[in-house]
Amino acid sequence: MLFDCGEGAQTQMLRLNLKMNRLKAICISHLHGDHFFGLPGLLSSMHLLGRKNKLIIFGPPPLKKFLEDLFLLSDTKLRFPLKFISVIESPNSEELADFGSFKLFSIPLNHRISCSGFLLKEKPKPRNLRPEYLIFHDVPINKRNEIKEGADFIKADGTVIPNEQLTLSPPRSVSYAFCSDTAPLDDTVKAIANSTALYHEATFEDELTERAELTFHSTASQAANQAKIANVEQLYLGHFSSRYSDTKRIEEQAKSIFKNTVAVHDGLKFKIE
Amino acid sequence: MLFDCGEGAQTQMLRLNLKMNRLKAICISHLHGDHFFGLPGLLSSMHLLGRKNKLIIFGPPPLKKFLEDLFLLSDTKLRFPLKFISVIESPNSEELADFGSFKLFSIPLNHRISCSGFLLKEKPKPRNLRPEYLIFHDVPINKRNEIKEGADFIKADGTVIPNEQLTLSPPRSVSYAFCSDTAPLDDTVKAIANSTALYHEATFEDELTERAELTFHSTASQAANQAKIANVEQLYLGHFSSRYSDTKRIEEQAKSIFKNTVAVHDGLKFKIE
Repeated sequence: MLFDCGEGAQTQMLRLNLKMNRLKAICISHLHGDHFFGLPGLLSSMHLLGRKNKLIIFGPPPLKKFLEDLFLLSDTKLRFPLKFISVIESPNSEELADFGSFKLFSIPLNHRISCSGFLLKEKPKPRNLRPEYLIFHDVPINKRNEIKEGADFIKADGTVIPNEQLTLSPPRSVSYAFCSDTAPLDDTVKAIANSTALYHEATFEDELTERAELTFHSTASQAANQAKIANVEQLYLGHFSSRYSDTKRIEEQAKSIFKNTVAVHDGLKFKIE
Repeated sequence: MLFDCGEGAQTQMLRLNLKMNRLKAICISHLHGDHFFGLPGLLSSMHLLGRKNKLIIFGPPPLKKFLEDLFLLSDTKLRFPLKFISVIESPNSEELADFGSFKLFSIPLNHRISCSGFLLKEKPKPRNLRPEYLIFHDVPINKRNEIKEGADFIKADGTVIPNEQLTLSPPRSVSYAFCSDTAPLDDTVKAIANSTALYHEATFEDELTERAELTFHSTASQAANQAKIANVEQLYLGHFSSRYSDTKRIEEQAKSIFKNTVAVHDGLKFKIE
């Protein structure tokens, strides 16, 4: 999945050796140029490179017509199915799609124009069976699935074997919250609570709080504060104003409030586990 | 002036230290993505960087509405005047604008969708006065402009002093022809005849003549042949298919027909004089 798609995104993907054709979905938070001007080029390149498999785009409703008009202009009939799912700004986190092992939700944000973040959340995983105990208690194969889901086992003589004797806890489920452009908002905190990893914009250093308010952006400390109240595990900061040649100060200001903070740079890779 | 504006044009301009705000006009030949997907980003950046002076865009008529829709989407009111001049595909070279010392014309091309090239042509320059002869023949100041334009001087006693005695030839006027995407076309030759410098696409090596015909592109030899028939001075080739990792062969094939050929690369600078 790709979250937002600024100009040159396809070039960056090429440079980082990320395969365009492995993309299943692209999520666009809002229609400011730095968040979607790379979409036409990326879609055209996938088309020209012969993509066949379906792509889903999540984004503000007007983006659908924009893309349709664009392909009309250049007389392009995409060779792959493109499904558009509208994301409508809302004070609640809405479920947008179920991808099997994880779900995608919207995140309420507060920007100059209609804008939503995205939350990618793994579903709870089945418990791990302990084979030696299943054999000992003579558990039939057809009972295993419900035991994986947490059920106890009742023997023929009525004895109850508690689930904890038959299974171990599953690996925990992780989540990634993407908050592109936003001033601090209470509804955001609710939506991203307890996330494993949070990407949050921090356009300005703390000295420019007024400017941040005026432009519906966040300062370093505001972003860190959102991470702290939401009790996330790790915070990634980005979307720095071009006035800063260096992001050390933003990272330090955020760290004084929320220790697990990293100021990101182009091409940064991180694991969420 | 900028001729066509693919994705990432603003990044390239930055890298090459070309000042966005010095741009007076952008000419878009046609609406395939690789020729205009960089326009939204470039215009937005000029807006955000506080441009005030007028910009003219020459391009296919639907581009106007595309840009208007785009700025509506992102709720952007450009801070500088943007004038749009429609270029309509035509079998003739049409005068598009008069910029004082030079004029801009369209060039008929032959591509899959409506497409026009651009010809930038210096106006004939006034002849250079020879001050010593003006003094010798006692030419009054108010006659000088017509003599610069080529008039002879008639003395009070009726003697005619031919212009060649009073002036020297001006520096010659140069021209630049830009032929973005096209299969060879006779109308193109007429429009670009005797140009100082011709940029012409050469998407394919000569072995792929059929593919070139099918996609309305040119091979190396076809481009060189156009340059030869049009009697231009210098040929620059570009728009190479990404299948070629090296453009030496295209340059060689063209050179065998038209010697003054250069296969261009990103960032190449050349003088037209």
